[in-house]
Amino acid sequence: MPDQPRSLSYRDAGVDRELAARAKHRIGELIASTHGAQVLGGPGGFGALFRLPEGIDRPVLVSSADGVGTKLKVAMKLGRHDTVGRDLVNHCVNDILVEGATPLFFLDYIGMGQLEAGTVEQLVAGLAEGCRENGCALVGGETAELPDFYAPGEYDLAGFIVGIVAEAERLGQQRVQDGDVLIGAAASGFHTNGYSLLRRLFFDRLGWAVNDPFPGTSRTLGDVLLEPHRSYLAALRPLLGRLHALAHITGGGIPENLERVIPDGLSAVVERQGWELPHEFRTVQDLGAITDDEMLHTFNCGVGMILVVGEEDAEDIARTLAEQDLGGWQVGAVRRGAERVAIR
Amino acid sequence: MPDQPRSLSYRDAGVDRELAARAKHRIGELIASTHGAQVLGGPGGFGALFRLPEGIDRPVLVSSADGVGTKLKVAMKLGRHDTVGRDLVNHCVNDILVEGATPLFFLDYIGMGQLEAGTVEQLVAGLAEGCRENGCALVGGETAELPDFYAPGEYDLAGFIVGIVAEAERLGQQRVQDGDVLIGAAASGFHTNGYSLLRRLFFDRLGWAVNDPFPGTSRTLGDVLLEPHRSYLAALRPLLGRLHALAHITGGGIPENLERVIPDGLSAVVERQGWELPHEFRTVQDLGAITDDEMLHTFNCGVGMILVVGEEDAEDIARTLAEQDLGGWQVGAVRRGAERVAIR
Repeated sequence: MPDQPRSLSYRDAGVDRELAARAKHRIGELIASTHGAQVLGGPGGFGALFRLPEGIDRPVLVSSADGVGTKLKVAMKLGRHDTVGRDLVNHCVNDILVEGATPLFFLDYIGMGQLEAGTVEQLVAGLAEGCRENGCALVGGETAELPDFYAPGEYDLAGFIVGIVAEAERLGQQRVQDGDVLIGAAASGFHTNGYSLLRRLFFDRLGWAVNDPFPGTSRTLGDVLLEPHRSYLAALRPLLGRLHALAHITGGGIPENLERVIPDGLSAVVERQGWELPHEFRTVQDLGAITDDEMLHTFNCGVGMILVVGEEDAEDIARTLAEQDLGGWQVGAVRRGAERVAIR
Repeated sequence: MPDQPRSLSYRDAGVDRELAARAKHRIGELIASTHGAQVLGGPGGFGALFRLPEGIDRPVLVSSADGVGTKLKVAMKLGRHDTVGRDLVNHCVNDILVEGATPLFFLDYIGMGQLEAGTVEQLVAGLAEGCRENGCALVGGETAELPDFYAPGEYDLAGFIVGIVAEAERLGQQRVQDGDVLIGAAASGFHTNGYSLLRRLFFDRLGWAVNDPFPGTSRTLGDVLLEPHRSYLAALRPLLGRLHALAHITGGGIPENLERVIPDGLSAVVERQGWELPHEFRTVQDLGAITDDEMLHTFNCGVGMILVVGEEDAEDIARTLAEQDLGGWQVGAVRRGAERVAIR
């Protein structure tokens, strides 16, 4: 039995218990690779135990739940399940980073039609890799075998993260001021949004296969589409004290995510000329004859995170990001105005 | 926008955004009903904020992830989605209670084929009710609309809980001793285990409908099958200081869950005569011609939680449970022995 409370549910007498036990063992090793001294507890616990870090003034726990969405269908098409776990962990890490929090631990839920040991192992390998990259412990999870819910070979994947921040160090709209500068941090690709549109375009309308070349690159369509959602933790952690707010650009794009950190009476004015639409997005827009507006509401358009910073810090922070190949484009500014987000 | 970070994912242009917005508003009210002063944060946050309680010595966070499994299919058959949320919350609360922890907050994940506002609202109503009953804040969640994953009207539901315990107050096998007494706490029904077998028996083999009467009761089959998984928090919290260990009897039944809290060299000897198989379990065993062994490994058999307590406390604790109509049966004892769990 692995040393973490991961339960595999056997809802039916038809389940192969030996296969399940082997998968459980390998998964246990992957999970243990993410554990530090803060993870407590012996074999087979019912709950996962994590000792709270000390020395944080008025600690606030910051949590988030998320799924991967239809990007999973691309992974299934390719039979490659070791990247979507990183997508999920990095997405969750970025969501709590917006509040100024650094991650403590992560749990997952995998629902699948029939337990496929190799698939589960790949999924957990990706989760474990994502957790290690972010200094986050993968403390538990549930793999449910639900033959009446999922088709053979299919699954859904959800994740839950908990992080921590000192109450006084929270980022957010309470810090955002007239004159602040908007800095765009580069996305690593489509991240986890717009995949219904992407799949419809490439697989249904154009009839391409995942191993076809992606035009203008040396990569396949599958590689481009599966590129993992980037984590901004390592790059932004040293800057947290100088940030006013962050907007993680996910479903709804820049307009619907940036408005979440702009207070009443202020307007985030985004200059469309402030950054260049990356090649893969331009290709999608051309192939699908997609309007600029639909592009902006469906995709991150190359900007995975927007930093809201004071004017005095803007140049230095932009340069720091640029030096790490993370964009650092000045994409606009905060002004007085009624429209929470205006895109020009 | 509701005052919690619940994101609804629109993966496709075909989604009805207005319908989604209305559901989001009602869900926001339900969620707010579970919030106390410890929940921080304004509208539309990316992460959920929960202020840590003070005055706990060497605090340990205890977390758990779980699903509801195929009990959901019964809810779908009945078109009644307001009970499975309580199942999920109570299941999670019981799992961390085993470590001695009391709950702080909960997040959910709902994956569904097409956003059905009424269904989501019922699901969240059940989650919110479960959270209120357990003094736990429903701080966030994700509802993902994934038409290619789930059939119309179908969904999966997963949950994630975080609780807290002082390190010195952890329960578990390190406290279990030769001579300890096993006390069974009554289940409220099948809880969330054995539903593939139950569905196969009643719907496939016997061809019954959910509104058919359940033999020997004034309830329907649907009512009996949907009876929510009970939370043991309120009954056991006052007793925590006198408990050595708890075993939450879920998938795998008494044998596979009790062994998780029995240390090397000791054996939990369970006397099958120590409690009576409740009517609904007896009916299932008779109708399905199920062996005793399969019953014990598939169902809780009427015992939802086993308390491991010192001999000197056993009688008093058993009486306390009995007075609350929670069984309190002395179902066995801990002895020296090689077999971790022996059932006689």
